Amino acid sequence: MKKPLILVTNDDGITAPGIRNLVEFMNEIGEVVVVAPNSPQSGKGHAITIDSTLTFEEINLDGPQKDYSLSGTPVDCVKFALNKILTRKPDLVVSGINHGANSSINVIYSGTMSAAVEAGVEGLQSIGFSLLDFSWDADFSQAKEYIQQIVKKVLENPLPKGVVLNVNIPKLKREDIKGVKVCRQANAKWEENFDERTNPHGKKYYWLTGYFNNMDDGHDADETALADGYISIVPVKFDLTAHEHLQNLRAILE
Amino acid sequence: MKKPLILVTNDDGITAPGIRNLVEFMNEIGEVVVVAPNSPQSGKGHAITIDSTLTFEEINLDGPQKDYSLSGTPVDCVKFALNKILTRKPDLVVSGINHGANSSINVIYSGTMSAAVEAGVEGLQSIGFSLLDFSWDADFSQAKEYIQQIVKKVLENPLPKGVVLNVNIPKLKREDIKGVKVCRQANAKWEENFDERTNPHGKKYYWLTGYFNNMDDGHDADETALADGYISIVPVKFDLTAHEHLQNLRAILE
Repeated sequence: MKKPLILVTNDDGITAPGIRNLVEFMNEIGEVVVVAPNSPQSGKGHAITIDSTLTFEEINLDGPQKDYSLSGTPVDCVKFALNKILTRKPDLVVSGINHGANSSINVIYSGTMSAAVEAGVEGLQSIGFSLLDFSWDADFSQAKEYIQQIVKKVLENPLPKGVVLNVNIPKLKREDIKGVKVCRQANAKWEENFDERTNPHGKKYYWLTGYFNNMDDGHDADETALADGYISIVPVKFDLTAHEHLQNLRAILE
Repeated sequence: MKKPLILVTNDDGITAPGIRNLVEFMNEIGEVVVVAPNSPQSGKGHAITIDSTLTFEEINLDGPQKDYSLSGTPVDCVKFALNKILTRKPDLVVSGINHGANSSINVIYSGTMSAAVEAGVEGLQSIGFSLLDFSWDADFSQAKEYIQQIVKKVLENPLPKGVVLNVNIPKLKREDIKGVKVCRQANAKWEENFDERTNPHGKKYYWLTGYFNNMDDGHDADETALADGYISIVPVKFDLTAHEHLQNLRAILE
């Protein structure tokens, strides 16, 4: 049987430990092509590059996979890979492993998940992986078996049309991970704070900071699963229509 | 009665005709504060600025409103306005009027709509407006009455929690607009094409181009309403969970 073709991307940049671990895990499952940003692209959401141009180059990194570094966003990487690099349609697109959580509302800010969503828009099977550890030295190996299992299950059981997976992994040792839970996106948000500084010329400038506020302790929410030591999987869709409110809103707005 | 406080933003930049028209329309309804990007931010999706800093300044433009220009993305503008500029919670956030469509899948790439969604995440009433005309000379005045009507209706009938509106306006004269339709997001996508060029130093570079492919002629889809001469309103949510697939996926993935 032909090996599945797996496209790998991320938002932390092509040399980040998270993506290098994911590539290593995927090399054991399929034929791997990496098309990832040449620089960190965290928080880029679903941004695409339309006012400037893109360049790419093949780079040589350890392993049997091919690696291409692109000057764009994670979503650009998926578009560019499908149109200019891959010669056949990939069987799966995986994004990550992100350094840090993309659970709950983070899905909309995340370049990692936006790349996965873009692959879904293109009609492909797609999964984003994130580890709840921002550190560059994070230990991605603890999640290896789980990640490989999830990938194999998706290759064997294609996801419903219009759905991609948002997988978040707690920062735990392999033996302390309790298992996998399919969840809904928790109701949570960032409480922003802008840290004010003054530059040497006397002008004020600001850093976006803040803290994460989880307002949802539902047993079926991703934040709950993660807090309980489970890997959370949220099926994510890109039809954003609030179908359940169409009828009521017609009565008011039409 | 106190005038409603309306925050206005966009992604084409604070001086774009689209936002200046929207400000003019909103000045007739409420007290208006504008916090918008100091440069074009189209296609920025839900990007936020975390690796660099932000600056802002108050600028003087025609009209009774206050105008603040920010060095960030549309989503940054909403966060910054709520945290550093406004002294009370706005009654409504409006984004646009975008120069060009944000119907169907464009909602996920759009800075205009991402700003509206961010306001929704913050628990605010929020609407994004877009005109199906990319031109800088587009005639936004044709839609004035409809835009004001939609805004008044939302101020009188608050939207359901977790829902914001994506309003797209066909490029038609006032008398040729057939009315308003509440719709679902059409199933459509961009078919990408990368235009290859060679720079003076012999290196290849690429422009993202493509064409829009609407695969959905459903009578309740936004693209259909627009093609038929209606203003389309899609209620958009930011809980991206594919709730309808949770049960099936549990059987496969847990």
